[in-house]
Amino acid sequence: MQRVAIVGVGQSEFGELWDRGFRDIVLKAGSEALDDAGLEGKEIEAIYVGNMSGGRYLEQEHISALIADYSGLAELGIPATRVEAADASGGLALRQAFLAVASGVHDVVMAAGAEKVTDVGSEMTADIMSSTADREWEGFVGATIPALYAIMARKHFEKYGTTEEDLALVSVKNHRNGALNPKAQYRREIKVEDVLNSPKVAEPLKLLDCAPLSDGACAVILASEKVARQITDNPVFISASAQASDYLAIQNRRDITEMRAVRVASEKAYRMARVEPRDIDVVEVHDSFTIAEIMAYEDLGFAEKGKGAELIREGVTSLEGSLPVNTGGGLKACGHAVGATGIRQAIEITLQLRGEAGKRQVECERGLSLNIGGTGATAVVTIYERG
Amino acid sequence: MQRVAIVGVGQSEFGELWDRGFRDIVLKAGSEALDDAGLEGKEIEAIYVGNMSGGRYLEQEHISALIADYSGLAELGIPATRVEAADASGGLALRQAFLAVASGVHDVVMAAGAEKVTDVGSEMTADIMSSTADREWEGFVGATIPALYAIMARKHFEKYGTTEEDLALVSVKNHRNGALNPKAQYRREIKVEDVLNSPKVAEPLKLLDCAPLSDGACAVILASEKVARQITDNPVFISASAQASDYLAIQNRRDITEMRAVRVASEKAYRMARVEPRDIDVVEVHDSFTIAEIMAYEDLGFAEKGKGAELIREGVTSLEGSLPVNTGGGLKACGHAVGATGIRQAIEITLQLRGEAGKRQVECERGLSLNIGGTGATAVVTIYERG
Repeated sequence: MQRVAIVGVGQSEFGELWDRGFRDIVLKAGSEALDDAGLEGKEIEAIYVGNMSGGRYLEQEHISALIADYSGLAELGIPATRVEAADASGGLALRQAFLAVASGVHDVVMAAGAEKVTDVGSEMTADIMSSTADREWEGFVGATIPALYAIMARKHFEKYGTTEEDLALVSVKNHRNGALNPKAQYRREIKVEDVLNSPKVAEPLKLLDCAPLSDGACAVILASEKVARQITDNPVFISASAQASDYLAIQNRRDITEMRAVRVASEKAYRMARVEPRDIDVVEVHDSFTIAEIMAYEDLGFAEKGKGAELIREGVTSLEGSLPVNTGGGLKACGHAVGATGIRQAIEITLQLRGEAGKRQVECERGLSLNIGGTGATAVVTIYERG
Repeated sequence: MQRVAIVGVGQSEFGELWDRGFRDIVLKAGSEALDDAGLEGKEIEAIYVGNMSGGRYLEQEHISALIADYSGLAELGIPATRVEAADASGGLALRQAFLAVASGVHDVVMAAGAEKVTDVGSEMTADIMSSTADREWEGFVGATIPALYAIMARKHFEKYGTTEEDLALVSVKNHRNGALNPKAQYRREIKVEDVLNSPKVAEPLKLLDCAPLSDGACAVILASEKVARQITDNPVFISASAQASDYLAIQNRRDITEMRAVRVASEKAYRMARVEPRDIDVVEVHDSFTIAEIMAYEDLGFAEKGKGAELIREGVTSLEGSLPVNTGGGLKACGHAVGATGIRQAIEITLQLRGEAGKRQVECERGLSLNIGGTGATAVVTIYERG
């Protein structure tokens, strides 16, 4: 396996982009990534695209070919592959691109993620998101994704004493970070009271415990170490990539206060990178709901099971803490562009390790990102280190 | 890169399986493949799944995790990844599984393909299939997939003198082969007149020029040469796998009588396997429409551009000919279970190279399969050889 580095990053705005089409935002992200890497399209050997539901959001499948086409790469005939595992699709695209380079099959590969979700109504959006859980055992009986996360939250409260205030602190922290991120969808700070007083979505989860579903596209360019050394002075190496699955319906899981796929994938990743949780300096987790960030602290090994809330209470995961988490604002403040999120996380860690994170810059040598699909049936963990 | 062999194959029935669910047919294919390989589920290290539109056909995305779950593999947390490129999704799953083993990342991987299409009405099915072409430039103005292939056929007729009778001969041949295949959806012979007199779908294409859209699931198990030698005496090695893209909308292509992605992918594959078209003994092509098989003869290098029809007229591609094509009946007689088709093609070539193709067995040492997405914006070519 050859070493693989991120040599270029690009991101469209995240938000309700009613004035732009799917093709526009994908092009913006892709061309920005090429410019950042100082490469031309024709130097890309393959594309992996994370997209959750172009079929339902856009009535367009075969999005891999669409992206190759609109990127001007169809003329070259390069292979373009869409991968999907709900909102872990971006993480899967990053992983497949990593494997394609690590294995020596390719030297320069683009990993992109994109979703256009606001062109359909919110009811349909809720139904589409439900299709990431078990449709027959959960969706058809009315369980939405917020409802399923609410069940996990209640159990976590009951078993470990986590509180609504703890969840609110996660949202407050991520909004505070987002306020320092020019690419974040929501760039304003909020207070604990704002979260607690926001409309209930699925108790105990309120509106400000939930990440918004957003339009957005992201792209990163991966290169073999040999190529990376030639084209950049600040490569960010991927030292581990691991993926795991769990039961699709939460009713079949042994303990819904733990995401086993996260535990399995992170343990694999730590072994692969030959590091311990304590060696990680900066983290991006999948805070689609605030409870997911608390559980991630535990399942990634940063806190004992049940003690995740202590990290947010004590400020450990704030920008000033010893383990800054979601420095760019997380899904909550950056926006959750479903298939793009896993790539956006990789971009945030890359900017941090390059020292290009501006006002939200933290001290770091090594980073980790966690991208989750649905209610946790798929998890992808990536570990990065400065070149 | 280590050598990769197919060590197990499994297939559900293909057809209108109204009495069985998606989960049932996937399990049937997967367990049959494990039995054939003499392996247990826990020996599988990763799963790649080809599925085109679970989101619209089943209102279920995240099908990779669903399959890991219902295969009893969620308990082990193994990674499960869905790949999609329209009806080339199965071919992409085979290719990603091949790369995962060839690169040494895994030693035993399952590549599956599955689609359940008959649970929705035919109008919706037509619209879903249209989502594999360019929705904005083709689908929204009413161009269906049969209509787009009809345009290619007309151009081929005009430019090269190919006729409706030539197309009919393809359908007749594939039905004749299908009659000898216990797993084929349509196991009866038809005559040229039957095709010519069948209802017009999109002139010059008639009902019997078009493959049926079917429910079905297929799975193959790939293993490194080391493992393959331990568990089987008749491994079938994959000596090349190549994928290419083309413009999504046919209006942007230089010449719609050629599928450039097929030419690019096959030339790559021949180089990778160090063979020439003349070294291939048995072939599976993507005859979603009869014209596609004629064009495949040409774009795969078995005939000069424009002379593809001669192969069918002269019987070259029949079971008794020098280059048998679609020995199992092709998409036309086996049924086209969209995301499963690319895997079904691999199974047919595997059975032929193992000498297990029964009444349709041909003499062969080396085989090739071509899986196409939509109207040709994605093509995957795989070359196989006897161990």
